[in-house]
Amino acid sequence: MKIDMAAPDGSSKEGSRRPKGDPGVTRERIERAARASFAERGWAGTSLRGIARDVGVDAALVHYYFSSKEALLDAVTTPPPEWLESIRRTNSAPPRGRGEAVARNLVWTWSQPEIRDVLSSILQTAAHEARTREKLRQLVTLSLLPAIAAKLDDDERLVRASMISSQLVGVAMLRYILQVEPLASLPDEDLVALLAPTIQRYLTDPLP
Amino acid sequence: MKIDMAAPDGSSKEGSRRPKGDPGVTRERIERAARASFAERGWAGTSLRGIARDVGVDAALVHYYFSSKEALLDAVTTPPPEWLESIRRTNSAPPRGRGEAVARNLVWTWSQPEIRDVLSSILQTAAHEARTREKLRQLVTLSLLPAIAAKLDDDERLVRASMISSQLVGVAMLRYILQVEPLASLPDEDLVALLAPTIQRYLTDPLP
Repeated sequence: MKIDMAAPDGSSKEGSRRPKGDPGVTRERIERAARASFAERGWAGTSLRGIARDVGVDAALVHYYFSSKEALLDAVTTPPPEWLESIRRTNSAPPRGRGEAVARNLVWTWSQPEIRDVLSSILQTAAHEARTREKLRQLVTLSLLPAIAAKLDDDERLVRASMISSQLVGVAMLRYILQVEPLASLPDEDLVALLAPTIQRYLTDPLP
Repeated sequence: MKIDMAAPDGSSKEGSRRPKGDPGVTRERIERAARASFAERGWAGTSLRGIARDVGVDAALVHYYFSSKEALLDAVTTPPPEWLESIRRTNSAPPRGRGEAVARNLVWTWSQPEIRDVLSSILQTAAHEARTREKLRQLVTLSLLPAIAAKLDDDERLVRASMISSQLVGVAMLRYILQVEPLASLPDEDLVALLAPTIQRYLTDPLP
């Protein structure tokens, strides 16, 4: 199969092969297939060649966008900025209703295909692969905890934020990744009602 | 390297090669090395050959005890019966103090090297590998949830048990696997004090 290619910035050099169609669309299709593959078959079961097959393009085209499996994993495990933005917005909710706002935001997060796919990729590879594990640790430490803790004003706000994170990560694992029943089928409103007081307590109760 | 082997049941057939020393000890050393390898290098980075190298024995000896990497993973991701026993014991605590008993049992669980190693292996490979994911799902569904729910008497005891499991799994991930700070260094007593009311609420508060 002959492929025309252009550099991702749209430039093309003489003799280079340019992909047919919109490069952005192709890149997006590759990333989508990669997320599905990492989520379903894991790091070990994913190959650039297999992803090319899933998308129906030549492996050279996948290599054109992503120099290695590592680069591809990196690209598909970077959460969309809207997600961290939503967490920050949540933490502007009035203190008394913030537990519920955080719980609602978890449900919203996992209802958004683009955020859900990335978080699934991270959680499904993180516990396992040292590279992604470090990425999840950084994500929690540098993004999630500060975003949750931003509006808290005591010295131990990171303890509060990490207890909240532990509850959110645990629900994500059991409900969305492992799909353990009855948690997987629990109506969103029931989950919010169960989670909100837990998170509220971690936010505002006196610490031990 | 020449190896003498005996069948794991201690019998030996003519012409078979028998491992030197106590077979139980060798098997245990292989399992310990396998757990460390699965935990550190994951499924993809683990091989029977590499484990043989870690233990300092011939690969044939590892193959003698475990027919495949799958069989080895299976063996090292089966939690010790003491663990489920401890959960059942915990749930015989008086209802009012059961939240604290469950929280204390989590801390105890992760202080026991043999239980911790197995649970780490499961959590570190479960999110990723379909085989172990199914094993973790079964572990939660068939063992953890019933053990937690055993002494609860309403129809929705599995909802309660799965919310508790979500909090326990989340803390295990962040504190013990990813070692996110400040959760990783939080004194056990503080963690118990933070967790106990959450678990107590999931056990006894009216459900939505």
